[in-house]
Amino acid sequence: MMIVDDVENGSLGPYQDRPRTFPNMRSKPYTPLIFRILMGINVRILVILLLLGSGYVFYIGASTSPIIVFVFSVCIISFLLSIYLTKWVLSKDEGPPEMAQISEAIRDGAEGFFRTQYGTISKMAILLALVILGIYLFRSTTPQQESSGIGRVTSAYITVAAFLLGALCSGVAGYVGMWVSVRANVRVSSAARRSAREALQVAVRAGGFSALVVVGMAVIGIAILYATFYVWLGVDSPGSMKVTDLPLLLVGYGFGASFVALFAQLGGGIYTKAADVGADLVGKVEQGIPEDDPRNPAVIADLVGDNVGDCAARGADLFESIAAEIISAMILGGTMAQRCKIEDPSGFILFPLVVHSFDLVISSIGILSIRSTRDSSVKAPIEDPMAILQKGYSVTIVLAVLTFGGSTRWLLYTEQAPSAWLNFALCGLVGIITAYVFVWITKYYTDYKHEPVRTLALSSSTGHGTNIIAGVSLGLESTALPVLVISVSIISAFWLGHTSGLVDETGSPNGGLFGTAVATMGMLSTAAYILTMDMFGPIADNAGGIVEMSQQPESVREITDVLDAVGNTTKATTKGFAIGSAALASFLLFSAYMDEVASFANESFKQVDIAIPEVFVGGLLGSMLIFLFSAWACSAVGRTAQEVVKEVRRQFIERPGIMDYKEKPDYGRCVAIVASASLREMIKPGALAIISPIVVGFLFRVLGHYTGHPLLGAKVVAAMLMFATVSGILMALFLNTAGGAWDNAKKFIETGALGGKGSDSHKAAITGDTVGDPFKDTAGPSLHVLIKMLATITLVMAPVFL
Amino acid sequence: MMIVDDVENGSLGPYQDRPRTFPNMRSKPYTPLIFRILMGINVRILVILLLLGSGYVFYIGASTSPIIVFVFSVCIISFLLSIYLTKWVLSKDEGPPEMAQISEAIRDGAEGFFRTQYGTISKMAILLALVILGIYLFRSTTPQQESSGIGRVTSAYITVAAFLLGALCSGVAGYVGMWVSVRANVRVSSAARRSAREALQVAVRAGGFSALVVVGMAVIGIAILYATFYVWLGVDSPGSMKVTDLPLLLVGYGFGASFVALFAQLGGGIYTKAADVGADLVGKVEQGIPEDDPRNPAVIADLVGDNVGDCAARGADLFESIAAEIISAMILGGTMAQRCKIEDPSGFILFPLVVHSFDLVISSIGILSIRSTRDSSVKAPIEDPMAILQKGYSVTIVLAVLTFGGSTRWLLYTEQAPSAWLNFALCGLVGIITAYVFVWITKYYTDYKHEPVRTLALSSSTGHGTNIIAGVSLGLESTALPVLVISVSIISAFWLGHTSGLVDETGSPNGGLFGTAVATMGMLSTAAYILTMDMFGPIADNAGGIVEMSQQPESVREITDVLDAVGNTTKATTKGFAIGSAALASFLLFSAYMDEVASFANESFKQVDIAIPEVFVGGLLGSMLIFLFSAWACSAVGRTAQEVVKEVRRQFIERPGIMDYKEKPDYGRCVAIVASASLREMIKPGALAIISPIVVGFLFRVLGHYTGHPLLGAKVVAAMLMFATVSGILMALFLNTAGGAWDNAKKFIETGALGGKGSDSHKAAITGDTVGDPFKDTAGPSLHVLIKMLATITLVMAPVFL
Repeated sequence: MMIVDDVENGSLGPYQDRPRTFPNMRSKPYTPLIFRILMGINVRILVILLLLGSGYVFYIGASTSPIIVFVFSVCIISFLLSIYLTKWVLSKDEGPPEMAQISEAIRDGAEGFFRTQYGTISKMAILLALVILGIYLFRSTTPQQESSGIGRVTSAYITVAAFLLGALCSGVAGYVGMWVSVRANVRVSSAARRSAREALQVAVRAGGFSALVVVGMAVIGIAILYATFYVWLGVDSPGSMKVTDLPLLLVGYGFGASFVALFAQLGGGIYTKAADVGADLVGKVEQGIPEDDPRNPAVIADLVGDNVGDCAARGADLFESIAAEIISAMILGGTMAQRCKIEDPSGFILFPLVVHSFDLVISSIGILSIRSTRDSSVKAPIEDPMAILQKGYSVTIVLAVLTFGGSTRWLLYTEQAPSAWLNFALCGLVGIITAYVFVWITKYYTDYKHEPVRTLALSSSTGHGTNIIAGVSLGLESTALPVLVISVSIISAFWLGHTSGLVDETGSPNGGLFGTAVATMGMLSTAAYILTMDMFGPIADNAGGIVEMSQQPESVREITDVLDAVGNTTKATTKGFAIGSAALASFLLFSAYMDEVASFANESFKQVDIAIPEVFVGGLLGSMLIFLFSAWACSAVGRTAQEVVKEVRRQFIERPGIMDYKEKPDYGRCVAIVASASLREMIKPGALAIISPIVVGFLFRVLGHYTGHPLLGAKVVAAMLMFATVSGILMALFLNTAGGAWDNAKKFIETGALGGKGSDSHKAAITGDTVGDPFKDTAGPSLHVLIKMLATITLVMAPVFL
Repeated sequence: MMIVDDVENGSLGPYQDRPRTFPNMRSKPYTPLIFRILMGINVRILVILLLLGSGYVFYIGASTSPIIVFVFSVCIISFLLSIYLTKWVLSKDEGPPEMAQISEAIRDGAEGFFRTQYGTISKMAILLALVILGIYLFRSTTPQQESSGIGRVTSAYITVAAFLLGALCSGVAGYVGMWVSVRANVRVSSAARRSAREALQVAVRAGGFSALVVVGMAVIGIAILYATFYVWLGVDSPGSMKVTDLPLLLVGYGFGASFVALFAQLGGGIYTKAADVGADLVGKVEQGIPEDDPRNPAVIADLVGDNVGDCAARGADLFESIAAEIISAMILGGTMAQRCKIEDPSGFILFPLVVHSFDLVISSIGILSIRSTRDSSVKAPIEDPMAILQKGYSVTIVLAVLTFGGSTRWLLYTEQAPSAWLNFALCGLVGIITAYVFVWITKYYTDYKHEPVRTLALSSSTGHGTNIIAGVSLGLESTALPVLVISVSIISAFWLGHTSGLVDETGSPNGGLFGTAVATMGMLSTAAYILTMDMFGPIADNAGGIVEMSQQPESVREITDVLDAVGNTTKATTKGFAIGSAALASFLLFSAYMDEVASFANESFKQVDIAIPEVFVGGLLGSMLIFLFSAWACSAVGRTAQEVVKEVRRQFIERPGIMDYKEKPDYGRCVAIVASASLREMIKPGALAIISPIVVGFLFRVLGHYTGHPLLGAKVVAAMLMFATVSGILMALFLNTAGGAWDNAKKFIETGALGGKGSDSHKAAITGDTVGDPFKDTAGPSLHVLIKMLATITLVMAPVFL
């Protein structure tokens, strides 16, 4: 028997004799204005707004560059396509009432969390915006800015506006990811009753919707900002700003996006694992009810966690990755074009936007290539969904190579160096190959088809301790290959760019860093498809939960189980992909930071002398930041889980009817408690990440001032950033891989190996899995975001350090 | 009933009806010539040799500097004192035959291991010496060396000779540490039957013996090398080498020491934990016999492990710390003296030797201040041994502050900057305070009197998984405070030195780095006493094992238990001390490396541009090296433990009489197996540490050559070294603290908290303890050595990168 949410459905089930005791969930939480507005917009009005907006957008686009018009057009087409995908998904049936009811409970929970979380984040964002405003109003302007007539005030408002727009877009990206997943889950469950292929298609298209929106919004947001600044500031007209300096104005956007993504990922990650652990501790261990039992007040919170921790947070994470990468590549393209005196620099500056426009096109084709095979419905055996997804990926990759080559020829061809575009196309290829190899390495270390996880499973047979030692060793060891791959790709892309023939005034080659940037773009050139596969994971996971809770026949469960397993693999590989791109993007942002400091300080800032004690200390502090952040992220999960345990215990005591289905558990209260607890817990690590570089930079600036050491603050922050990036990459690889391997070692034992379910090996493997949970879903993914957030915060806050 | 080693004692115990089946242990293992010679020397001959050596030593000392004569005198006096301490300890009775027999079994085991281990290490050292010889014979000499007439061949032989001497001295230091501990353990057990105070005194004096030998050998070794080179090369006579360049010739000594220490620590660490885990798995779990039961063939290996893993390895570790720190400080002193044109630079160069000479004096006073209180033998209650040791430490610290101040006034006074010595004295104070604070922080995070370990113990009550998560979080978090302390002390010492008034030709201050060096010396100025307290730990631990195995009355066990507990604390604090000094010493060695490269390349090498992609890659590889090394160290323990399990199982099957005391277990075979397995396992991580910087430096040198990028190899290695140092410090802090905290959380529960022994909490805490074992006793301490080894290897191998 099932719970009934009696608001929308007539059937009342076992609770029908009870009065409506459960309306408080939807009215109680505080909803900030911005979300009330956003949530009030229905899809058709959105279309009309988009059409109206297009007028303005195309006007400024046309005034800026035909490339911008192209980017706008592609983005708008892909938004239209994403609306089609939503409509297609929403037109699918929600299945029997039991399913719909569970889905509604999840939806309520996810929306409740979203309101609470983004309410807090938006308050912090506004506070930070005021701080930035204050800093920029009192800082000194750069000589370039003065010469181009941008005063202190203009510069302050530009940065703050970009920051707020970035934060808003990131919030919307997160919301969209969650919005569709809480609606698609039940439709996947329902489709699974008919065929595996249809279920797969629904999940992929739902994932595709949010992927297109996330990537499209990153691209169009930057394009609109760029075009607006271009028109407004009268760029390239005499006496005003040069177009090659324009991208530096966009860093606020990247910082806004990474600020929101950091808290979204932290909060979501703490939420999902705390709910998971908490629900298990009371439900399974204390009360002896099954895992997804509707009587457990925390079970909905657990399912909600998949949506907010994976869908919303990963949406914000990749949004921020793409935004940071586009902006850093634009800055580097502009710098290089200026140094090499390229006649029309707009191709180099706008190249990243075009790459991601093609990303939208080719990923759409990849997504649509996964069709339901109605003609051959005779095929009874379930096809391997991984193979289907992989086929779609292959289509996307092939198209990516072709369009990337075309884009380089279109935009990066210059008469100064006629073969430069070919070198950059090869850089892109390096990036695409790196992405492929990263995915492969992640699979090797986390899939139980391969040696490492099997060895880990074997070590479970001698106890909990040996399992943990083996898992930690595996995770630490798994950092080696990705680092080697990243090293090779950075150096080869740099040298391809370096030898591209682009030279500056003095005749020395200047394309190296831009080559690395192009490789990063190559790596991210299939981002929308990768994100689709990632979003697919939690949707399939949720669908499986709904199928299980609504007691569907075994055959349906089998289908969702297979989809869930595939989802686990795609989730793991996306993490590898995210950390690889974070490594490359941070390196670019670091270079952009050096340029920014040089431009503010009006003196060359090309070297950071790590033999100076302060700089060494900066490095120590940077690495320490990563360790401390990881520590706090992990321990936050533990503490929050305790609060869940207390609340669930309280409900069981105060509402004894729950166990007999006579009273409805207060899912909303659990959700609210997990949400507010995880929000409180996310503040400490989040604040550490934001405040410490500012404080360190400022302190050393003061110290440098009194000891006659100019630029000391900027140098120390540079070292801090660099060491934090390197340690962060390694720590994230360690945490993600160890967590994934523990999870799959448990799954391997559950297939019957080493004694199977219930054996001592299985118990040891469960311990490993529990340890891995906060590693791989809280601390690890938060570190991806942290790395890029550090890079953008140092860019925006550079005036504080000087 | 007890085992009988029938070689020396007449009483045969339960095995008396069996023929001698156990003589193979002493004859079988291969003994390299050098050890046969060393082991053949008895104490009196050693004294005569020392006296004869003194003649030569004083002759060259007098030809060099009166300071060297002072250093020699102090070292020789402290060697005489250490001989007195040995004689005092050896004159104590070995207790009843049961005790002596166990002790002999341990001694045989430890010597068996030592022979196998150092046989392997010496082969590797000779191989490496040939490689160094080859490299130096084909490298280019520096302009300075050419002007001073030191040819390529001389330089090669000097480096190789220094390397071999360093390796030999490190080996002797390790041997001495083990030699006394395997003899003192039984005497402590025996003394514990009489009074706690006497047992404490025996353990402290035994520890003091090896501490004095280790520190004294580091000092005298460097002093002899320095004086020999001084006389032989005719330093400071016209046309030959300047005295300020002399210290650079000593780096080979530091590398030799760290090379041996790395393998000693790795092998010893793997040995002790593998034997521990292996003995427990078969003995306790499979056969159900108690922990220290003589029937378990691996139990002796376990007790041997305490000696070789703690005494020998820590002796080699601190020997190498002191040697590296003295040499780097001498190099920096020489460089500074030269730049500031100080008339008599010998004070600045020889200052570190004097500091450690005083270290020997004051630590001896501290050690001797712990006396047995025969007069007040009425006092029945056991005094807190920690308080007694702490009192001795306070005596030492007060004397250290006084002598340090005196030494600075004596040697660092110069008319150019009359108050410089005072600044340097304050630097020393900074170092002494840092050492104190480090010890306090380590205690805070690992002692169950404080919050962190109690929280960790509490988390055990919800299961294995939560215990591990909490322990990992605790370990990661515990890195923050030490990093802050190190940061503050590096910067404050640097600025004290910077403002000392010492200026170079251009009038810019030049004493900063030397200030940091002086702080490091301050930190290590009580090294001999710290090492005494550290050595005390495993001796007390072993004594406890012997008391338990020989079934002494409860009151005796109580005494050794208290001593053991204190030993755990001193062991943990020494690790904090070692990592703090490693952090400072590495920073110094890094500066020395930059100077060395500049001198070889004959161009300025002051900055490492971390925005160059190759340099960033070097950093990534450096941090990755730390992660991979830790992974391999941890997994080596797991694999070796499996071999122990197999051997013990085999013996129980093939010799069924063991369980009835009718057959003697083959302890020697177990020891040999653990030894050879841990030696095999130590090769992989050790080789990684040695080969990877050389390979990386060489590859990037070649790459730099073909891409027209001079010094690329040296820069990449510099970045690698720096990032590895920072990551290594943090990783070692994490591993040591997490391991110590898990250990003590278990001990806290064993005191009866949270359900006490046998409860579920206790089981979860045991899991944590098992995980912590390889963390704190294998990977963590090996990282200390690794950090310094990297610094010395890059110094010695610098010609490869250029």
